[in-house]
Amino acid sequence: MPEPDRIRAAVRRYLDTVATGTAAEIAALYHPDATLEDPVGSPAHTGRAAIEKFYSPLESARRHTELLSLRVSGGNAAFSFRVVTETGGKTIMVEPIDVMTFDVDTQITGMRAFWSADDVDFG
Amino acid sequence: MPEPDRIRAAVRRYLDTVATGTAAEIAALYHPDATLEDPVGSPAHTGRAAIEKFYSPLESARRHTELLSLRVSGGNAAFSFRVVTETGGKTIMVEPIDVMTFDVDTQITGMRAFWSADDVDFG
Repeated sequence: MPEPDRIRAAVRRYLDTVATGTAAEIAALYHPDATLEDPVGSPAHTGRAAIEKFYSPLESARRHTELLSLRVSGGNAAFSFRVVTETGGKTIMVEPIDVMTFDVDTQITGMRAFWSADDVDFG
Repeated sequence: MPEPDRIRAAVRRYLDTVATGTAAEIAALYHPDATLEDPVGSPAHTGRAAIEKFYSPLESARRHTELLSLRVSGGNAAFSFRVVTETGGKTIMVEPIDVMTFDVDTQITGMRAFWSADDVDFG
């Protein structure tokens, strides 16, 4: 089980990469067999290729992410954060709560994002 | 799957009952076969009797709870909250992130609490 500080660093690296990286760079933070459920209740994406595809729409947007709250518990992380995307003159803001699991190398093995359309601010 | 508003009400009822109820009243909010993992990474408590026992130390403390952030996603809830307990002249404050699942009657079927000793403020 990775040390809490390594998990905190992995979460920050994830949010930094969501803000500035390519979809491939974001997907590279995941274990090759990882699963992603975003939002929770929707079908999960499994494997790095599917995960890269999930993030690819981000590439055409200006993005900003901000960590709001982070809890590390038994090798898992739960955190709330703000993500703002600007594309085609539209700004969209949402503050999900994500839960992540990690392997010993702090690759993300699972991500579940709790949010709904009610939480989206089209500012 | 319960409506989001019913899940939001169930989360508020849970936090109100943690603040003012007996352990039996808190346990009654759970499904008879529910599981509780608090903190995440520790062994789960299964069934209402075990869950009531888990909450019983609260009864000797003054308690205050406050919902900080709540996300409902596909019939599940993730929320951060503050819980302050006062017992024997000591005040303890912690702000976990909890994830809950519900049945159609909004009984809690599973609870996982993300926090660690690092997050506890002994004020």
